[in-house]
Amino acid sequence: MTDARRIVIIGGGAGGGTSAQFARKTDRAASITIFEKGKYPQYSKCGLPYAIAGIIPTFENLIEFSEEWFKKEHIDIHLETIVEQIDIHHKQVIAKKGVERVERTFDRLILATGASPWIPPIQQIQKNGRLLQGIFILRTIDDGKHISAHVKKGNHAVIIGAGLIGLEMADALSSKGLHVTVVEALPTILANTLDEDMSEPVVQELQQKITILTNHLALRVEEHHGAITALTVKENASGVEKTIHTDLLIIATGTKPETALAQSIGCAIGRTGGIMVNEKTETSVQGVYAVGDCTEYKDFITNEPLSVGLGSIVVRQGITAGSNAAGGSSEVPSGVLLTRTSEFFGMEIAAVGPVKQAIKNLSVVAGKYKGFSKPEYFPGKQPITIKVGVDDQTKRIVSAQAVGSNAAQRINTLACAILGKMTLDEFRKLETAYAPPIAPTLDAVTLACDVVALKLSRKRREP
Amino acid sequence: MTDARRIVIIGGGAGGGTSAQFARKTDRAASITIFEKGKYPQYSKCGLPYAIAGIIPTFENLIEFSEEWFKKEHIDIHLETIVEQIDIHHKQVIAKKGVERVERTFDRLILATGASPWIPPIQQIQKNGRLLQGIFILRTIDDGKHISAHVKKGNHAVIIGAGLIGLEMADALSSKGLHVTVVEALPTILANTLDEDMSEPVVQELQQKITILTNHLALRVEEHHGAITALTVKENASGVEKTIHTDLLIIATGTKPETALAQSIGCAIGRTGGIMVNEKTETSVQGVYAVGDCTEYKDFITNEPLSVGLGSIVVRQGITAGSNAAGGSSEVPSGVLLTRTSEFFGMEIAAVGPVKQAIKNLSVVAGKYKGFSKPEYFPGKQPITIKVGVDDQTKRIVSAQAVGSNAAQRINTLACAILGKMTLDEFRKLETAYAPPIAPTLDAVTLACDVVALKLSRKRREP
Repeated sequence: MTDARRIVIIGGGAGGGTSAQFARKTDRAASITIFEKGKYPQYSKCGLPYAIAGIIPTFENLIEFSEEWFKKEHIDIHLETIVEQIDIHHKQVIAKKGVERVERTFDRLILATGASPWIPPIQQIQKNGRLLQGIFILRTIDDGKHISAHVKKGNHAVIIGAGLIGLEMADALSSKGLHVTVVEALPTILANTLDEDMSEPVVQELQQKITILTNHLALRVEEHHGAITALTVKENASGVEKTIHTDLLIIATGTKPETALAQSIGCAIGRTGGIMVNEKTETSVQGVYAVGDCTEYKDFITNEPLSVGLGSIVVRQGITAGSNAAGGSSEVPSGVLLTRTSEFFGMEIAAVGPVKQAIKNLSVVAGKYKGFSKPEYFPGKQPITIKVGVDDQTKRIVSAQAVGSNAAQRINTLACAILGKMTLDEFRKLETAYAPPIAPTLDAVTLACDVVALKLSRKRREP
Repeated sequence: MTDARRIVIIGGGAGGGTSAQFARKTDRAASITIFEKGKYPQYSKCGLPYAIAGIIPTFENLIEFSEEWFKKEHIDIHLETIVEQIDIHHKQVIAKKGVERVERTFDRLILATGASPWIPPIQQIQKNGRLLQGIFILRTIDDGKHISAHVKKGNHAVIIGAGLIGLEMADALSSKGLHVTVVEALPTILANTLDEDMSEPVVQELQQKITILTNHLALRVEEHHGAITALTVKENASGVEKTIHTDLLIIATGTKPETALAQSIGCAIGRTGGIMVNEKTETSVQGVYAVGDCTEYKDFITNEPLSVGLGSIVVRQGITAGSNAAGGSSEVPSGVLLTRTSEFFGMEIAAVGPVKQAIKNLSVVAGKYKGFSKPEYFPGKQPITIKVGVDDQTKRIVSAQAVGSNAAQRINTLACAILGKMTLDEFRKLETAYAPPIAPTLDAVTLACDVVALKLSRKRREP
């Protein structure tokens, strides 16, 4: 046992948990320790809105690997344990579990410290350094439970931030019978996922079910006995203020990487504030890996640094870090494709690659196709809109967005084209599967590309 | 008008109709004529089983482009018109519409003559050169109407052939309350779409709803006053005969290309019996193109000639032939991927690339993954099984098969990998879209590839 490789993992979320699993798969004899500050072992953060909605019966259903499971795999998991210090010279991690001090020496260290919510500067949002009663963030099972306990049918709820999580929460709370208002400072919703022309029909659909205030800044909170009673917002252009009475406010304005421990041992931090890692998920400090929401990685198309926090990327990093820390040899792709999806109010949306405003170094020609999931004549066909972006210089497909039927699976096909560095004309030759109850003879994925091709040929003719 | 390019198209199905449309798109001034022997303009043959099932309200709903639509596009369409002769020296087509003789001179000719059903050698299946009453094939709207008129709830129906169309018809007739038996000479169902290990669970599921007799040869028909009363089949191995009483027999044993006219003008015919065409859909005779079920094309992976009759290939050929005949420049891919799908009895199946027994020139290592459409904890998750085949020498993905949730869209993603000539390790880096209500963090498409990778690494270690 003394010769066994010692791996310590800080953080037991999807990144840390997956690292531990793949370390164990790679080295049956390694000593593997996880320190997790929360009280739950590896669970699905992304599933929280669905537990609040009651689609998933209990929050405990979200736990993907139990404490017992880790123990059976001889992974030494410590919950409710806070790492206080990393002694990088002696390769020691010093943690506290209640009053008990726990120390572990490591040969390899994996940082999976996650991210913490970014709280916008709203007046009176905090009292004595804590959010007012009725104001919540959503990162953990306990956050979810607190929100659930606060949900009262017929009441009003306000969500700040119209990103994926904000809208997933809007759906969850709306399904529980609350009147929901979403406040978004930007002119559009889902700004990191869809271009404005793609999100516009989504807003229109959502406005039938909830209130969405884009171009509105949250200014200040009113309180009574330490509990929120109202939120005042201001329209950016007009400066007109509006007060929304509510006893439930959810903050979904993004996160910032949790890097205090990483910085304490000298890990290089990137432009986005995340820990810099290479394709082996190694940090700048030898023997130290980092995975998940605390890291920064490179966009496959723009090469710009990103720190997004997609579960699918976290898991891939965990597989790589765990394997490598245990002596294996694994690499993540040289850039992330950013394939992403969600569903709210019965609408499926998905995207891959950067949105329009995130592209600075390329001239992108985009085409959009609106069609159906099945042939025109087939009953039950569902609408699908796909937009594809092509780099005018290389003619490679660089981005795609979809709203509607099987948006995610259709985007996966375009993600494969992007990963394979396929040009528009190469991809347009794709034979998609056709059968009347399943899909039309030509699918929206290639028809959107035909629209781009037409635009490109017109551009050639009109210099 | 005298200088306009003259295009004549023989056959007004999906291949001929699409050719006409794209000829018109390419040249607004061309003179375009279609001769179609049937009485309906371009309609969806693949939709016939769903009109028989009543899912599509009437057979007329299957008509995708009406006679009026063609006329509005100044396409001179002649229905119920049989081409009797092509005078290739004078570039003339001579046709008969009832007693009327119609002649057209062409600069370019497109053959879209389709295929005719292959009738297996069953004793007494025909009388005076016609199928007995109650015995049907399924190629046209009229075939569909005749079958529908013969459907009586509670009666017994027998289908010969357990391919895609046979099983779609089994579902249609079963949904109309008939007791269905499918007779298949081969040991497995769907032999051109799924390997045996993939079709086995499908058979088991189907056996709950209909009777499937694999390894059974249809021997002879009994008749009464010219109508079928029973079919006798024989089990291949044992030789045991069995008689099934039925007044409805559907023959779905495949087709043979319709090439009489093509042969009359000297078009080269390939090994499969189809008209040989190049990537421009040109035949061996100058100025003559051919598209659709009457042609033979090359498999993308095996390079073997094929004559399959997939609607998606027909349409792509039509686009190419129509554009080229009108002076454009279009090419079909150098080989067909054979992306295909269907759904019956609530099961979605899909495949791309050759099945195991169709691969002779490659050593393929295959891996299979059984999982779910959503994370384990998410309610309503549906099973999905994916099998991926990889060429052991090049490590390129060469085939994939799927049964279950969104099988077709998942196969499209793998089809893109095959088209892009991606290796297993390249494709395994694909980030698929993840969100709990949509898909798990790692999708079955990449997890199946992980299984192949594991097999390949074991193979390396055990030479």
